[in-house]
Order: sequence, then C-alpha cells, then structure tokens
Amino acid sequence: MFIEGKNAVRQAIENGTTINKVMIDKNLSSRKDELVCLIAQHKIKIEYLPKTVLDKKSKTSHHQGFIAEAVDFVYSELEDILAYAEEKGDDPFIVLLDGIEDPHNFGAIIRSCECAGVHGIIIPKNRACTVNETVIRTSTGAISNMKIAKVTNLKEAIETLKENDVWVYSAEIGGENLYKQKLNRRIAIIIGSEGKGIKPSIKACSDAVLTLPLQGKVNSLNASVACGIVVFEVLRQKLEN
Amino acid sequence: MFIEGKNAVRQAIENGTTINKVMIDKNLSSRKDELVCLIAQHKIKIEYLPKTVLDKKSKTSHHQGFIAEAVDFVYSELEDILAYAEEKGDDPFIVLLDGIEDPHNFGAIIRSCECAGVHGIIIPKNRACTVNETVIRTSTGAISNMKIAKVTNLKEAIETLKENDVWVYSAEIGGENLYKQKLNRRIAIIIGSEGKGIKPSIKACSDAVLTLPLQGKVNSLNASVACGIVVFEVLRQKLEN
Repeated sequence: MFIEGKNAVRQAIENGTTINKVMIDKNLSSRKDELVCLIAQHKIKIEYLPKTVLDKKSKTSHHQGFIAEAVDFVYSELEDILAYAEEKGDDPFIVLLDGIEDPHNFGAIIRSCECAGVHGIIIPKNRACTVNETVIRTSTGAISNMKIAKVTNLKEAIETLKENDVWVYSAEIGGENLYKQKLNRRIAIIIGSEGKGIKPSIKACSDAVLTLPLQGKVNSLNASVACGIVVFEVLRQKLEN
Repeated sequence: MFIEGKNAVRQAIENGTTINKVMIDKNLSSRKDELVCLIAQHKIKIEYLPKTVLDKKSKTSHHQGFIAEAVDFVYSELEDILAYAEEKGDDPFIVLLDGIEDPHNFGAIIRSCECAGVHGIIIPKNRACTVNETVIRTSTGAISNMKIAKVTNLKEAIETLKENDVWVYSAEIGGENLYKQKLNRRIAIIIGSEGKGIKPSIKACSDAVLTLPLQGKVNSLNASVACGIVVFEVLRQKLEN
C-alpha cells in the first residue's frame, strides 16, 4: 500500500504504521527537510528517485516528492491473543520480544513460535524491529497464522498478563535451569535483544529467569535459536501431560 | 593467508582449502580463463582489481593476476572427533550437516552445537557451505572450540560412525516423535539443507528419523533453529540421567 504526500507520510509514521521504505524525489530542495529527518529517525529505508519515477508510481498524483510503501500487516491487541487462547481452550502461551532488531531473527522467531503453537507475540512499539518485508519473507508464511501485538509499554503488558494469571519468565543467563521448571502452565516467555539481552527493568517484572544449561566456552546462542529451544521445551512439557 | 599465482590457486581449490575470495587482475586477457571457471564453479567470490592493487597486496610478486585469500581454519578428521569424546569420557555427540548452504545458518549451528556440548560437526566437501569469514563471524567465537571434519562422502562417514557404535538419526519430518526417543546414548544427528532437507540416500543410512511435534500450519523451521532444538533435547536427556 502506498501512502503519498508529506502530511500523509508524516501521520503514518507518527501513528506507528509499518513502513518498508519511503521513496523521495532526489531533486528535493533540501535533504535536511524535517520530514526526511523524521523518516531517518525511525530507521525507515529511504530511496531517492527521479521525480518522473515517482510520478509514474503515484496513484494520487499529489505525492509532493514523498511516497511511503506501507506493509499490509494488521497487528493484534494483547487482549486478542488472550481471547484466542481462551477460544481454543488452551492455557495462554505467549512470547514477548524485548527489542529484537534483526528482521531475520524476528522472522525466524515467528516461524518457531508458529511451529510450537504459541498464541501470539508481543513486541514494543519503539526501538525494535517491527513487521517489514524481510520479516514477512523470513517467516516463510508463518506470519499469516501468528497474532502480533505492538505495545507502547512492555512493562504494562507484563502486568496485564500477570492479572490474567499468566506466569511471565525471562529467558536469560544466570537463572533457574530451564529443564527443572514446570512450564506446562499459563505462560509467557521474554526473549532479549541480540546484543543486550533483556533490559534489567523488564527482567525485574518477570516471575523467574529461565536459563539453558550451556556446556561450552562461548555460551551465547543466537536469539532466534534460544527462543526456539525455550518454546519447544514448553511444548514438550505440554505434550507430556 | 594469501595464495598467489595460477598453479597455487588451482591446487588450493582442488585440495579443498577454504578460500574466502580470489582477487583477479581486472585486465586479465580472458575472463573465460579455465581457472576463473574453476573458481566460479566452487562458488568462491571473485574480486576484479587493477593490477597495481594486486601488486601492492602481493607478498611474492609472482601473482600472475591471481591472489586467493584463504581462511586459516584447520579442519579435523572424523576420527579426531571420536577420539576427543573418548578422551573426555563422554558418549560421542556429533552433528552431520547434509548440504547447509547459508553461512549464517552454518555459523549459528556451530554456536548452538558448542553450547550443547557437541564434540564435532561433519560436513561434506562439495555442494555445501564450508568455513569462511561469514561463518566464523556468525559463530561468534564458537568455531575455535569446535572440531569440524570435511568428508568426501557423507555415507562413508555414517558407516564409520555406526562401526563405532554411534546411533545415527536424521532430523526430518515424517519420523518418530523426538520427545519419545531415548537420545542419551552414543549419538549423531543429521540436519538437512535449508531448501531440500536430507537427501533420501543419506536418510536411508540413518538408524531412525526424529521429528519435532509441530503444531502450526506452516510447519517449517529454520535449519539452525531445528538443529538447536534437537541438540538441546539430546543435552536435556543427558543431564537428566
């Protein structure tokens, strides 16, 4: 879907619409334009193109030098995810991502979660990868079966989960042995970002920390692999009972 | 490490040396040169550079228009991996990769295997990703603690493992539920390639097929995530006893 014109593009960004890229007239008088800065701040890809190309792509012919390519993905609400689990008669099984930045990791996580029967994924609105074309491609179709909620505040989301009797676990080093915990319950798992892990303030909100009993010297797993191992351990315990 | 000159580069390729890229004089009379074709066939990256740049890089000043950048990685033998497990007093725990092509996947697999206490990884010499710079970078250091054997024939390697009382399992759809198998034994796991899975002729050599009880509609995991889940289930069972 194309969003055209300066105001429309600005509003879309401010509303948190997932934008894959913005095509900008390469002869724009100033590249220090306020809107260009806003686009750059949100880490949205910019493509400078000749005005004639933009004119051709434009469906409104009022692009004013800016055409945003928005991703047609409809986010869910946290409540939708809980309702979906209820509807299926399942204990909720949810994954929260605290700042995953790499779209390939995010796509692989969606794929693993779909395979493990996770009901939904919660991501923060800011400073994290949202659904874009790379995520959709990497998820190899799994995204169309997965509810994803984008929340302003991850801590509030955790509180809501707790109010709904969901146990919230951080997957991180330095905690309890994953394999010695009872995970066959109403559960949410927090996965940290690639470089920094889970923010201490978020980890402090969780009921416990789950740790893989790592055997090596390097002992650092790729975020999407770690997520896959933890959600499948939850699934294993669910299937055992 | 640089390998310079037509014959040296050819021999290195034919001996299976891991080459990251070959820098070639861009004014070379013919780009259909037999050696250029050999390099391309082995899917080695080619960089065409001015002769002056090659002259500067050259340490021998006899580069003849060809300088290969070889990766300083020393492969192990299958027997080294078995001996290493024995030395540690462990049951062998080995992963075989049947044609993983993506270096990011290969790197992530090395990382997961290191974390799970795998003794070594066996890869085929041809039609598969070997150790290159991307693999080394993606493995985030794990590669320096992991023995990797490059074999001409994967089937022969499987036979050798069986002769050493190692149970060989294929990780693939359509087999036995992973979680209902006894994996706490002398074990090797075969992981298939991203697109094609495990070759039927290789799968036929394995003792059994292990399958994850997938719950979704899409039901296809990233190869490195699948490998992580399976090796950690083996580890879980090892730690349980």
